[in-house]
Amino acid sequence: MDELKVFAPATVANLSCGFDVLGCCLDNVGDEMIIRKNDLGKLRITKITGQDLPMEIDKNVAGVAVIALLEALESNQGFDIEIHKKIKAGSGIGSSAASSAGAVFAVNKILGEPFSNKELIAFAMQGELLASGNAHADNVAPALLGGFSLVRSYDPLEIISLPVPDDLRFVILHPLIEIKTRDSRSIIKQSVSLKQAIHQWGNLGAFVSALYSSDYELLGRSLTDEIVEPIRSILIPYFDELDKISLENGALGFGISGSGPSVFALCKGESNALKVKNAIQEFYENKDIDFELHLSEINKKGVKIV
Amino acid sequence: MDELKVFAPATVANLSCGFDVLGCCLDNVGDEMIIRKNDLGKLRITKITGQDLPMEIDKNVAGVAVIALLEALESNQGFDIEIHKKIKAGSGIGSSAASSAGAVFAVNKILGEPFSNKELIAFAMQGELLASGNAHADNVAPALLGGFSLVRSYDPLEIISLPVPDDLRFVILHPLIEIKTRDSRSIIKQSVSLKQAIHQWGNLGAFVSALYSSDYELLGRSLTDEIVEPIRSILIPYFDELDKISLENGALGFGISGSGPSVFALCKGESNALKVKNAIQEFYENKDIDFELHLSEINKKGVKIV
Repeated sequence: MDELKVFAPATVANLSCGFDVLGCCLDNVGDEMIIRKNDLGKLRITKITGQDLPMEIDKNVAGVAVIALLEALESNQGFDIEIHKKIKAGSGIGSSAASSAGAVFAVNKILGEPFSNKELIAFAMQGELLASGNAHADNVAPALLGGFSLVRSYDPLEIISLPVPDDLRFVILHPLIEIKTRDSRSIIKQSVSLKQAIHQWGNLGAFVSALYSSDYELLGRSLTDEIVEPIRSILIPYFDELDKISLENGALGFGISGSGPSVFALCKGESNALKVKNAIQEFYENKDIDFELHLSEINKKGVKIV
Repeated sequence: MDELKVFAPATVANLSCGFDVLGCCLDNVGDEMIIRKNDLGKLRITKITGQDLPMEIDKNVAGVAVIALLEALESNQGFDIEIHKKIKAGSGIGSSAASSAGAVFAVNKILGEPFSNKELIAFAMQGELLASGNAHADNVAPALLGGFSLVRSYDPLEIISLPVPDDLRFVILHPLIEIKTRDSRSIIKQSVSLKQAIHQWGNLGAFVSALYSSDYELLGRSLTDEIVEPIRSILIPYFDELDKISLENGALGFGISGSGPSVFALCKGESNALKVKNAIQEFYENKDIDFELHLSEINKKGVKIV
């Protein structure tokens, strides 16, 4: 195999109660990438559509992720990388993670799968380090593994895949204002009250339990965040109203996707998700902000060959 | 039914990664209590053996817990309460919780079960408030429900029962020095670094996952605590040595039970637990501290009628 075309999925990180440790993979929101071997013994970004991103290999997240993989293999194989961005940079649904994860997945596949998808996470994290100054795994892990991923530990890296209840749907609103992950991280306080931390870990424990027991109501109740949301939500236009509209229309829960500005409503079933999506659309159409709106199942596989 | 004799179990709270939200019920460590109706229309503690504890109903944890229950029912029924303490006060294995939980369980049973065991938790928490100045649920919940309990929220109170892998065993060492929960709480810092909090909730999420998937090794890896253990362990003689001995002898994990001074080793299987228990015994016998040592299965039922 000399060439591979892949779908590189968007992801929702944090999920309110799981700041920096939890993420989930979306199914019909993502980029397309084409990776092919070349005989030049070097790595090139040959094409980028949809976004204005660096073509230099060491300034592009897909580039640095593949460099890390090839270095681990001590391989001199060259590759051409085409990136067709559908996910906007700075959207909060894992744009950089999709590129990093898609690239290492495809290169690994072409090279005969020397690494498992789990092992690829560490390489894709190098893309996150470039993008945000922080090698976080809560987007690249679900992008590579599918479903829900929990980061138990960074040192050593340990990722746990959690079960996916069948009826879950995400409605994602992306207000077209840009918040860089780097900036969004910088406004977070570096210490938290013990009391709030206890609430947070109680809710995360409950969220994990609810995934195993398919307890949709409990999933919804667990989606609370007293630590990061009160600060980051200020940057998101009409956050409180969107929260209210989502819950009033039957969403299980509502929160910020990653570092925002995208927000998510977690819903049970396609028809409820459609209702929530329509209500959000109706509300946001009257505001002076362009936006994108997605409804997605949960992608249980992660990056897919097209 | 006019009289009931119950076994009121000891419990291990916190379990390293679940400070203030996680607890587990022990099977062969606990008090005995006898509760019988009286015709005096008032509540009395008629006998306490094994410990020097207040006989006044409003100064005794079992008393205040039953008062709360009877007030909720607007009942004037009188009861005599006998408490035969086997768990020492200030041991860190839920001595006050056992008395509170045992008392409300028995009174509720005699009155024809107007409340579920889950509903009894709020009454038993009044005992904890008296004992430690804090109405925590992480001992009384597992004492009443059995198995592992997770406190998702205190307001409103929501307790989640988690699955119990069959082969788990606890080895509990109780060095006979007294640490009051009230004092042990006061040395904890009221703010934590966000980084440590993230580690803690990653581990708690992993611990919950491991209970569902019966992943014993993951349970062990999740038993870490960077927040409370480094401070409280200073009060526990030979904590680091006990930790090392437990892990060297094959324990899955080791930590402080509740607010200490008791410590626990979580083990897989009876024979490994016995090995760990013997190693701890051999080590501690040469120190100048009296101690008690227990090996227990996990009690899946909570308070039991004898």
